[in-house]
This record gives sequence, structure tokens and C-alpha cells, in this order.
Amino acid sequence: MTVTLAKGFVAGAVHAGLKKSGKLDLALVVNQGPLNSAAVVFTTNRCQANPIIWSKEVIKDGQVSAIILNSGGANCYTGAQGFQTTHATAEKVAEELGVSAGDVLVCSTGLIGDQLDREKLLAGTSAVAANLNTTNGAIAAQAIMTTDSKPKTAEFTHADGWSIGGMAKGAGMLAPGLATMLVVITTDASLDSKSLDQALRAATRVTFDRLDSDGCMSTNDQVTLMASGASNVTPSQDDFTVALTQICISLATQLQQDAEGSSHDITITVQGAASEADAEEVGRSVARNNLFKAAIYGNDPNWGRILAAVGVTKAQFDPYNIDVSINGVSVSRKGQPDQPRELVDLSPRAVDITINLNSGTHSAAIYTNDLTHEYVTENSEYSS
Amino acid sequence: MTVTLAKGFVAGAVHAGLKKSGKLDLALVVNQGPLNSAAVVFTTNRCQANPIIWSKEVIKDGQVSAIILNSGGANCYTGAQGFQTTHATAEKVAEELGVSAGDVLVCSTGLIGDQLDREKLLAGTSAVAANLNTTNGAIAAQAIMTTDSKPKTAEFTHADGWSIGGMAKGAGMLAPGLATMLVVITTDASLDSKSLDQALRAATRVTFDRLDSDGCMSTNDQVTLMASGASNVTPSQDDFTVALTQICISLATQLQQDAEGSSHDITITVQGAASEADAEEVGRSVARNNLFKAAIYGNDPNWGRILAAVGVTKAQFDPYNIDVSINGVSVSRKGQPDQPRELVDLSPRAVDITINLNSGTHSAAIYTNDLTHEYVTENSEYSS
Repeated sequence: MTVTLAKGFVAGAVHAGLKKSGKLDLALVVNQGPLNSAAVVFTTNRCQANPIIWSKEVIKDGQVSAIILNSGGANCYTGAQGFQTTHATAEKVAEELGVSAGDVLVCSTGLIGDQLDREKLLAGTSAVAANLNTTNGAIAAQAIMTTDSKPKTAEFTHADGWSIGGMAKGAGMLAPGLATMLVVITTDASLDSKSLDQALRAATRVTFDRLDSDGCMSTNDQVTLMASGASNVTPSQDDFTVALTQICISLATQLQQDAEGSSHDITITVQGAASEADAEEVGRSVARNNLFKAAIYGNDPNWGRILAAVGVTKAQFDPYNIDVSINGVSVSRKGQPDQPRELVDLSPRAVDITINLNSGTHSAAIYTNDLTHEYVTENSEYSS
Repeated sequence: MTVTLAKGFVAGAVHAGLKKSGKLDLALVVNQGPLNSAAVVFTTNRCQANPIIWSKEVIKDGQVSAIILNSGGANCYTGAQGFQTTHATAEKVAEELGVSAGDVLVCSTGLIGDQLDREKLLAGTSAVAANLNTTNGAIAAQAIMTTDSKPKTAEFTHADGWSIGGMAKGAGMLAPGLATMLVVITTDASLDSKSLDQALRAATRVTFDRLDSDGCMSTNDQVTLMASGASNVTPSQDDFTVALTQICISLATQLQQDAEGSSHDITITVQGAASEADAEEVGRSVARNNLFKAAIYGNDPNWGRILAAVGVTKAQFDPYNIDVSINGVSVSRKGQPDQPRELVDLSPRAVDITINLNSGTHSAAIYTNDLTHEYVTENSEYSS
């Protein structure tokens, strides 16, 4: 049921004609209230798509009535014409639903630099607005897919009678300061936009922000949280944040497991850091090292490449007092080899790298994937 | 003739037994004077190999009598035993040549984390020291190869009677603040170590430092420049720096063209930057974007990935006033598409990306390669 699990939300999805494949390419999620509170986290990429520029204005007052999402084109670097397409889409949603265009978020995903077909998009918008119901969450999750092999959804229901549901897309350009993706999360908890924003930033910081599949940050990332208040329950901020974080962990893990062409899901845990920022910097440097990532693809526990990646960071450590383990085998300690690398079994999909900097008490985990032939294939043939 | 082109230098190479292939794996270059001045630029990776730790001490007084280089093992993260191997190698060179061990540089390249076979290395050192002559530059260049498909050499002779010759190795881990490589350059110009250091830093800053094939920085990089003074000519600092820069450009270009598995040599020129540092940051960000690199492999002019990579930098620019050209075709201007991407011909090996930030007068070029199936293959099978 995903985004239609929580009371107060309806959704729909259609094929508007943006994807040549004939698959679903347009989704609409509508908050029927009584509340319209919302929070959004955007990509930190400075080169941003038109729907990002639009949505940043919409969210300023913390009120959102609906969100419309298309696949089949990013509407990024499409100039004034592209911005007008985003604007016209929001206006069409507003007209169909009888709400204000200033309360309509827009998301787009697909190739950068191509104009969306505005006529098809607006006709599709009318069509999807006419087919909204409380069970369409599943098809909405399908409509936002690009190179995803399957839809990503997550659900949570609290004993007190409130729930959270979410959907996500994203398979490439998965990197920091949001992994590349669109995410919509709905809840019927009674929370104002300030509470939602606080919970969403806390949850994304340790989930989507720690997913760094290929080091490439998108121009279109947007994670949206909307609350209807239809449960009439106001959970504690802590309870809600914990539940929301679980939803985000589930969706982030699904994104990692479906990352383009990947054959391993790698968790890089950095311990003993002088600060959490140090731990994150080290984990991210390893996650972005192509030689390390290619070695994991080859089931090769080439731990020297891990240390070479640690060494380019500014984190606090003694280079010759770092411990590295791969899948539980301590392969290097204090600047020299420890257990033989042949003991490491890299045949499972899940790979655990643990790096102890022996410089403090902080830690962080970064989630990434290996660098495979299939990744190169998918990304060398994407737009052609 | 490479490193034996300049008067006052002899060299040799042997198979010491470090490479299982039976190929040459140990080279020695000796400066017979009258000068022994030298300068070295090292990797900025904080996790450094034992020969780097040793060589940093040797170069402190600017005097170098000889440099010994082995392939078949990086001697990195091999602890006290590994450092003793480096030390013993320098001592053996000193003993054979009747010089001070404190004037002998050591370089190693190969897999991180394995001990070198000290007995074979020392026996090989004696053998190579017994077979030095003024024509062995070519085989010395072969002995330092790892995954290189061919040796890299460069030569320059000035009308005034002085010359420079160089050799280089490096095919993977080609990244900043030295591309991953070993380089030895010799000259018979009469210059002190201070002049050499100044010229070497000026030359590497715009050549090897701008080569960023795969974003991975090595633990073993070392670029060494030695002067014998045997020509009895002291060129002007400018003349020497220009000639040295030409040698470094030639060697860096050869490294790029032989980068592991690459099918395109990409030059990313960033113009109109507010500072040279901004231009370099933007170029490097694009050079490290796997999605962009995979697209070039697929001959796909997917320029949106270039802008997405520009957008994650801190450089000064208006995101919607950036111009991008690929192989001379203006594909994006002022935040929107310009010429159709279909006009771009990416079939040649050489690819020129030009990015104009329209924010100033500074520029920089970064040299990189595409991300290919062959790169993944070579680097997933390296140590196994």
C-alpha cells in the first residue's frame, strides 16, 4: 500500500507517454488532510533541475497538498521552457484537485537536458487526477522507476494507531548529501511541518546520506514527507523519528541492493574515529575508490587499496596504527599484514569492511556497491 | 637512451626474481657526477610505503648518488620487516658503488601488503650494480613496469649542450597530488638541488598532478630528478623549467594513453574560472565522475553528467550560466541544450571537454580516461 497506507492519502499512476517503453511514468500522491504539513530534503547539488527549483519555493510554508512525480525525463538544464513545464504541471494538478499550485510539489527523473513533452505530461496529469484512490500506492511506486529493477516500498504501523508508508526510486547516481533518488513518505500522524522537518533531517542524515553507491550526486534528488493527521494521534518526536528512520533504512537498503549492475552490497564501518565527521570522510573515501570497488567485484580482498583510500583523507589517525577487517577477518593491523588474505570469503553478496582508526570513540557506516562490468554496461548505454 | 641520455649517468636492469613472469624487475640509475644534486616529489597519500619513508630522509640534503627501483611488490604496509628490506637494499647499493646509503633513493611498485623477498632483492642489487653502462636506459624503463603495456620514456637536448632524459611507469591508481607512478628524470645540466626542486615542483604541478585517470592515489608515488652537471652548462631557470615541463608532459601523456583498460584519453579544460584552483576542482570532479566516464566509453555525449559533476564543487559559478562543449560541439549553454548531442563524434580516442564557468579568467586542464569493461577486468583480477 506504500504511500496510501496512512489514512488521508490517495494516489494514482498512469502512462502519460514520457517513457517509450509504454510503462507507467506519472504518479500523483494527494494529502486529503485534515493537516497538510510537510517537509522536504533536497539534493545539495548546485546544478539543480527545474522541479527542484519549483519545489523549494513550495515547501517554504511547510504546507503541501499533493506531489506529482514523472519518470522519463529529469527536466534539468532545459532552461525557461523546462521551468514553464514544471510550473504548468503544478497548475494542472491544482486545477484538477481544487488546491493551490503553490502547495503542489513536482519531481522528475530521467535524462538531463531533454525537454519533457508538455502536452503529454498535462494530459497525463488530468488522467491521473481522475483515478486516485486509497489502494494505488503500489502502482505509484512503479511509475517513478527508471533503471530500477523493482519498486521500493516500506511500511510501519504503530500500536497507537498511526502509520508511515513510503516509496523510493533510484539505482544510479547514488551518492551523498542525498543518494540519487526520489522518495515520498506519508503519515497520518498529527505533526506540524517543524516536527516533520526535524524528524526527516535526523532520519536522512544516517540513512540516505550514508548511501554512496557510485559517488555521483544527482540534480533531481528529493525526499518528501507529508502528514495528514488523519489518525488524530500525535506521537512523541522520538517515537516518530525512530519509526521514520526505520522506514528510511528499509528504503535505502532496497536502493543499495538494486544499485545498477552491482554484485555486492558493501557496508564500510569506520570505528575509533576522533569525530563522526572523520569516520564518515574515511568511509566515503573508501566507498569511492574504484580500485577497491573493482577488487570486491573480483572477490579479491585487496586490503592495500582500502588503506590507500584512507590515506587521502584529512581524518585524524596514525597511518601505521589502523586495523582493517574484511568479513570478520583481520587482514591488517598496525601497518602490516595480519591474517592471510586468503581466509577472506567474498562470495556472499553482503560485504563488511571494518576500519578502526584507533583515534577516538566515534563511528559511522557508509553503504556502497562494487564496480562491475554490468555497471559500466548500464551507464555507457543509458541515453543512447 | 632515456635516463642514460644525459652525460654522467649509468644504469642497469635485471630480473631479480620478484616478478613471477621472469621479466625485468629491478633497475638502478647512478649519477657519476661531478654534481650529485637532486629533487623529489612524493605522493601526498598519508599511508605511505617503506621506500617513501626512506627516500624522504635521503632527499633532505638534496644529494643523491643513485636510485634503485623494483617492481613486483610495493613494500607498503609491511611493517618493520619491510622497512628493514628497504634499508638493506640501500646499504647494498652503497656497498657495491662505494657511496653512502644515505644518498641512495629506493622506489617500489606492485601489490600492497606483501613482503618482498629480501634475499632475491639483495642478490639482484649486486647483479645490477655489476652491469651498469651508459646505454641501459631503455631496459631500466622496462624493469619498472607493472601493468604498463609498454615502457614510457622522454628525451630533450638543448642546443647549448645539456640534455634531459626520463622514464616513467604507471597505469592504474593514476590520481592527484601525484598520479600513481614512478618517474626518474636525469640531466647533465649544472644545477643545485634548490633549482632542481623549484623546476620539478613547477613542472609536476601542471603535468603529473593534473593527470587523474581513476581518482585513486597511490602509496608509492615518487618523481625523482637528478643532475650530474657533466655538461658543464648552467641553463637559466626558465629554460630548464620549460624543457623539464615538456619531458613531464610527454611522460604524463604516455601514462594517460596506457591507462589500464582505457579506450579514450579525455582532456577536461575548464575556462572562465574565478581562480586556477576553482578550474582544477571542477575539472577533477568531472574526471572522477563514474557516470560521465562510463558514458564516454559508450561514445555517449551525455552532457548532463558533466553538469551534475560541476554542481558538487565549491567553485564560483552561476549554475545556469555554464557552457559545455564536447569535441568542439557546444552541447549546453546558459542552463539549456544548445546543439543536438547527436552532432558529437566520440569515436576517436581523444576526447576534449571544454567547460566555461563564465566567472573569471583562469583555466586548468585535467587529463583522465574513460571507465571501461577492461578497467574493471584488470582491477578485479590484479592480486588474485
